[in-house]
Amino acid sequence: MTELLLIGIGTGNPDHLTLEAVSALRSAEIVLLPRKGADKADLADLRRMICERHLSAQGQVIEFDLPRRDASGDYLPGVRDWHEAIARIWAGLLAGHPASRVALLVWGDPSLYDSSLRIAGRLREAGSELTIRVVPGITSLQMLTAAHGIPLNTLGAPFLVTTGRRLREGGWPEGVDTVAVMLDGECSFAHLPGDGLHIWWGGYVGMPQQILIAGPLGEAGPRIIAAREAARAEHGWIMDIYLLRRG
Amino acid sequence: MTELLLIGIGTGNPDHLTLEAVSALRSAEIVLLPRKGADKADLADLRRMICERHLSAQGQVIEFDLPRRDASGDYLPGVRDWHEAIARIWAGLLAGHPASRVALLVWGDPSLYDSSLRIAGRLREAGSELTIRVVPGITSLQMLTAAHGIPLNTLGAPFLVTTGRRLREGGWPEGVDTVAVMLDGECSFAHLPGDGLHIWWGGYVGMPQQILIAGPLGEAGPRIIAAREAARAEHGWIMDIYLLRRG
Repeated sequence: MTELLLIGIGTGNPDHLTLEAVSALRSAEIVLLPRKGADKADLADLRRMICERHLSAQGQVIEFDLPRRDASGDYLPGVRDWHEAIARIWAGLLAGHPASRVALLVWGDPSLYDSSLRIAGRLREAGSELTIRVVPGITSLQMLTAAHGIPLNTLGAPFLVTTGRRLREGGWPEGVDTVAVMLDGECSFAHLPGDGLHIWWGGYVGMPQQILIAGPLGEAGPRIIAAREAARAEHGWIMDIYLLRRG
Repeated sequence: MTELLLIGIGTGNPDHLTLEAVSALRSAEIVLLPRKGADKADLADLRRMICERHLSAQGQVIEFDLPRRDASGDYLPGVRDWHEAIARIWAGLLAGHPASRVALLVWGDPSLYDSSLRIAGRLREAGSELTIRVVPGITSLQMLTAAHGIPLNTLGAPFLVTTGRRLREGGWPEGVDTVAVMLDGECSFAHLPGDGLHIWWGGYVGMPQQILIAGPLGEAGPRIIAAREAARAEHGWIMDIYLLRRG
């Protein structure tokens, strides 16, 4: 029986680790560390640094190349095929390195737009003898609001968390005045009317190269698009997130 | 000029603190620690334990009695009056104990259904020379999903975070299949149809007395109501949270 630890590591600041995450990592015999290609080498480097700082002397890091998602067909079937491919790689690594406790370092938190729990579920369905333990971590959404010094919700009010794709396809959602947008590679806020909306945007939140821009959408939107393009050209990649509020 | 640190401490497990929160706490000269009455003494005890573990030798804890919110009138004006009363207390404590760095330990994360940022904003509006720094912490929502081993969102789909009051008054929200409910003292899920909904509920998530119940709402709902009532009778208070998913 193997315990698979899905450890949330926060968003790029090694000090986002919780004391619980540090203990969990120290207890792991093996850490599976994905390589996501040269353009995202920073992310693998952060994981390596965290392992160097916190793994025990018995802990071993095993790196593997993450397959690329085929983005040519429909979105959901493409994601599912990709998860299946990753599950096969994990299964092979687990079979080749028997251990009672194996850790994966998950960007942000394993509950929020992350596929580790779904991939681990596939392994169990395929017959792997796994128990799964989730160690929560700081999400980019929390880091965004912390960096801007704002609350996520207004007093007693709801908020929606959604994706860039949904915002582009469906416009402003019903029944809420606050919307947080994740997984948006296309500045989907540009499809919304600029009037009456405020945006708080962050690129690389929590990392040394963090960029923050906030303001009325009509005025701040074009600044964000320009800053995002320039930062992506400079660093080779970007991760960003934003909060929109109406009224 | 005083720097006010709003430090998220997670949900009752002292190991939820991040390394950043530990450093921030160690750098504080003063920690303001609210007493919320005998029924919530556990919560003050946890904050005291965290201070004992992590404050520097120069750090000083100053306790104060949190005023009670007047729940007799309308909700929002009552909350605003309560914030104003707390802001006056903070202002008096800051004036009486001049320090360059003062910390408040915030349950969960300062961005999520917490009033610290709003109260600090009142102080600044009233002329206090304050800078505010937010240190994110693990939320009860993350602890709920971690404890149940489930993701918050389904693949690429949005989710809504709302309050018990809103769920009671508005029913199931438009356009989402996943709803997380906070600040619900009245088991508002009981107002929803039991068919076609799944619930993951947690009481005292992250604490030693944690209780978890999950299942189809029609079957699990009555079990949750009974377990919640029994636990509240035993401990004198309860904090709970749940996630509902349709389909």
